[in-house]
Parts: sequence; structure tokens; C-alpha cells
Amino acid sequence: MVRKALVVDCLEAAKPERVRFEEWRKGGLDCVHVTVATMHGARETLSLLGNWNRLLEDNSDLIALARSVDEIETISASGRTAVLFGFQDTTPLEDDIELVEVFYNLGIRIIQLTYNVQNRVASGCWETVDGGISKHFGANVVSDMNRLGMVVDISHCGERSSMEAIENSSRPVAVTHANPEEFIGTEIELNRRNKSTDLLRKLAANGGVIGLSPYPKILKGGSDCTLDTFIDMISWTVDKIGVDAVGFGTDYFMGWTVDRLKWARCGRFARESAVPITGLSRWPDWFQSPEDFPDIHAAMEKRGFSKAEVDKIAGENWIRLFRANFG
Amino acid sequence: MVRKALVVDCLEAAKPERVRFEEWRKGGLDCVHVTVATMHGARETLSLLGNWNRLLEDNSDLIALARSVDEIETISASGRTAVLFGFQDTTPLEDDIELVEVFYNLGIRIIQLTYNVQNRVASGCWETVDGGISKHFGANVVSDMNRLGMVVDISHCGERSSMEAIENSSRPVAVTHANPEEFIGTEIELNRRNKSTDLLRKLAANGGVIGLSPYPKILKGGSDCTLDTFIDMISWTVDKIGVDAVGFGTDYFMGWTVDRLKWARCGRFARESAVPITGLSRWPDWFQSPEDFPDIHAAMEKRGFSKAEVDKIAGENWIRLFRANFG
Repeated sequence: MVRKALVVDCLEAAKPERVRFEEWRKGGLDCVHVTVATMHGARETLSLLGNWNRLLEDNSDLIALARSVDEIETISASGRTAVLFGFQDTTPLEDDIELVEVFYNLGIRIIQLTYNVQNRVASGCWETVDGGISKHFGANVVSDMNRLGMVVDISHCGERSSMEAIENSSRPVAVTHANPEEFIGTEIELNRRNKSTDLLRKLAANGGVIGLSPYPKILKGGSDCTLDTFIDMISWTVDKIGVDAVGFGTDYFMGWTVDRLKWARCGRFARESAVPITGLSRWPDWFQSPEDFPDIHAAMEKRGFSKAEVDKIAGENWIRLFRANFG
Repeated sequence: MVRKALVVDCLEAAKPERVRFEEWRKGGLDCVHVTVATMHGARETLSLLGNWNRLLEDNSDLIALARSVDEIETISASGRTAVLFGFQDTTPLEDDIELVEVFYNLGIRIIQLTYNVQNRVASGCWETVDGGISKHFGANVVSDMNRLGMVVDISHCGERSSMEAIENSSRPVAVTHANPEEFIGTEIELNRRNKSTDLLRKLAANGGVIGLSPYPKILKGGSDCTLDTFIDMISWTVDKIGVDAVGFGTDYFMGWTVDRLKWARCGRFARESAVPITGLSRWPDWFQSPEDFPDIHAAMEKRGFSKAEVDKIAGENWIRLFRANFG
């Protein structure tokens, strides 16, 4: 039997519940990287993992946890979606280098070094000054993630921290969810969430992948962005950094109330958001949920991407990066 | 009755036990700033405060907790030593701006922004790159400390973080324990713990005070430094930044095993110390404990400092800074 090309969404941040897992099946997703924790401490993260354990058990007809590419393939072959556990921040590690391996043992395979602001490891895209990867804890965390086989994610990191993460990492690094700043322009951008072309070139040169996202706040035209423009962005990115360095990471955010948005903006580090909270985003018509992935793939083929190119961008590039990391 | 000049040691990090409190009484100390927590999380810090509560109760013949300058004076007048609670790191605040006030309410009056390395607030003197005070959490913490009336301590912070702390703070800032780098030279220095002359000038210009220390690792000549050389350092510092900006902060470290030194060097951020751990320091002959403070004061008078100048350096400068902070 010929192995089918796998379809991956390399970041979703929705409230985890069965309706989401049903969407994954309808959208033909073989693997989804979910955000278990963001700015949560170690103890809180254990409870979030406990919640996921219950979800995995209660929804074992639709999903299963993957800790390796082999497991992703086995789960996909069983007609279910493989769940990859990730953090969008190193706050769960608190100040403890030993927690990297502890969370690895609990199934975490992808960790973003920081979420928007400065932490012990790196600086986020909201900081005015980005001092890069901290010399002691930051370098130790990246090195331990490399040793164990976890993906370093730089999506919400600042430019210098992102550059240094790529330099420090012995394995390919991921931008699981962001868009190219040069294509989008800076006027719509939420505090430089999107990535510079220099950074994307460096990412690709080191075997990394960027997950392009239909999240309106980082999209050209916002909620009114057309599918055509989204495909333009895919083409533009492929032209700049090559077809092997592009994938999807939708940042699909659904099922939460506005309180969750305030958490994302302020954590506990501020009483008020530095960015106005204008309510939950309206997703583009052509991406109401991950169910709509097949339409994106079809539009890519219509635009002239070959089947092999669509396969790479739809998931195979992520699978290659996972294999290079998980070891 | 004429109020007597108060004698202050603005940082000790010894294992808290009765023998230390007896030394304070013998040394004529009216007030000691003690390190309740360093790289401890919030929960651990609550237990450390609990331990201090027991010590305060069991040794109420020698010590009492002060939360204001009035309380320091009252405790001194009762023939006891006033204890000021402080942290040598913002780790106890974890990621939560609301914990500043929570710990204020528990008696904490002095917080060092970071201990050697980068945290969410600032960068330490061991980092290669110091990005300054972080734009969100760092600025919020300084602002809340100012609002409540807590002293911002920059002793183990990096140069830029220290400069920006002074710029951000609406109240005078403290270097509770360090020496002038220009006087000491850099060869003996432990990763730039000592402070540049530029920084000391800025500190003094803003009403701040530096606590000079006989801690061998940051002292000219190390353990063999003479009292004469220590007095030279006092004179040098007074010449550079004025008699109002100089005090003492011994960094007296006693009663611990070498494990505590490893904690200070590595916390949980590294498995091995970046600086060799060569055992506990031998203190200079003339400073075996805070009992020896009167000899230092006498040597200053002998050198030609006036009684009023000795009083300022021995404690009154700290009292002025505390009053400007505690409000």
C-alpha cells in the first residue's frame, strides 16, 4: 500500500472539545498540533494535561496522542487524527531545566520559546528590545529540547530571539503559525507577529517550516481576506523560501469567550491589554473551520501547484520536520 | 531625647538563626535587610515567610519585623534589631503583577529585579546581552513597587537593566550590596557583579544608595583585603558620588553548606554552575561577622570621616532612602 500524503495543521488553539475533533475528521486532518498550555505554570499545566487525557479517552474514536512520526502514521491509518501536544510558551518549565524532560515524558513535542513578551528564555514580538536567547536558561532549554527531540517553535518570538533560536538549535526550527510580514504589510499586524523575509530565509536554510495562517489579525485584508489572496500569500512565500519550507498552522481559535482573549493579551503580566481587545475575530468566509482545508488544497491545485507541491505544503513538510526533530 | 543615628546592614543572606540575631545585637545593628527568597517560586516563598514568622516569634527579645521607618525607630528604641524583608529576585512574583501587592502585604519592602540571569522583568549581570527592563511585565512591576512603596534593588542586575530601573523608578533605587568596579578592577570580579562608575553616578543623582560589601568575591584582594583597603574603597566611592549615596550591605553569607552556593549559582536554570564553585568564602579578618561593624566605623573616623559622615554611611543614608520609598 502506498503511504498517503499526510495533512497537518501545525497549530490550533481552540477550546478542546469533541466538536473540534469532528471538524478535523471532516477536514481530512491526519495530525493537529494543539496548544496544551500558554502562560500557565507547571502545576496548572499538569491539570491541562489531565484534561487532555480525559478528552483522548472519551474521544478515542476520533483522536489519539502521537509522540513520534510512526505514531502519527499509525493513527492516520486507523482513520483518526493524531494529536501532537505543544506549549505556546516556556512558562510551564518555570525556572527548571529538568522540566523539559519531565514534559517530554508527558508527551509534549513542540514548545514555543515565549508568547509575546520577555520570559527567562527569550523575548517576544511585543517587546521593544529583544535581547535574544538568554545565555544560561535559554541556551540550556534549546539544547535540552534538541537532545530529547522536541521542536523549537518561534512563532510569537521577537526577531532577534527567533534568529538566535535558529542559530542555537541543532535541529530544524518551526514557525508553527505566522505569515510573511513583507507580503502582509505592517499596518494590519498585531505587534509584529508576522515574520521578516530575512528570518524566513534563515528558517528555510536550516530546514525549518512556516505554518501560514488564516487568522484574521495577521492576514492581508483581515476577516475580508479572499481565498485568492491567501493563495497569493502561499505562492509568494514559496517563491521566496521554497516549497519545502511552507505549511499550514491555522491558529484556529474557537469555543472560547473573550476572557480567553484577555488571557492571551495580558496573561498575568498586566492588568490591561496593551492592544485593544475588540472581541473574537470573524474568520474568513472560506475558512470557517478546519473542515475547509480541502477547499484550500483544491484552490492551490487550481492555481497551478502540482499535486506533489500541494502534498508538501498540506502536511508533508511538517512530517519531514517532525522526523528531523523527534529523531 | 535626641534620636540616635541608626546603623543599617542593607543586605545579609545568612541562614536565619538565633546566632545571627545575637551578632546583630553585639554589632549594634538597628536594622538588617534580610533575603527571604531568591530564585524561589511563590509557593516556596510563602513557606520561607512562614519560617521567618516563627523566627520572629521565637527571637522577639532580639528582633522584630519593620514595615516602615517609624517601626525601625521603635524597634531600635526597644533595644532590638529591626528586620526588613526582601527578595533577591522577582521569581517569587512568578508571572503575576498582582503578587507585588500580595507580598507587600506580607511585609516585603525591597525586591531585587533579578538574580544574575534574565527573568521576566530584567537581565542579570551574568547575561551577555542585557535588553533592559522588559516593556510589559518589567515596567509594570517597577511601577507597582513605586505605587506601594517598595525599594527597587538592582544589585545583581546587568548594566542596562540597572540604568533603566533608575530611569523607570519614581523613587530612589538601591544597590543594596555591590562594590565599585572601577576601584576593584575587573580581574577578581564574579561576572560583573560590581557597578560601573557611570551607573553609580546615575544612582546617586536620583537619590539612590550603594551598600558597599566585604564579601570576598567582589572585594579588592579577596579574602586578604585589608580594612585599610576597604576604607580606601569607601573614600573612593564618596569622592565619586558623594557621602549621601554610600552605605553598607555586607552580603554576609554564613551558616549554609556548599549546596546553598550551588543554588545561588545555578538555581534550577542550569545543571552545572557557569562559574567554578570553590567552596564557601573566607571572610576578611576584620569582618568575621556583623559584630565587627563598630571597628569599621572606628576606622572611618580614624581616617578622617566626621561623625556626621560616619553616621550617614553607617545607616542614615539607608534610612533616608527607606523613607523616600516606604512613603
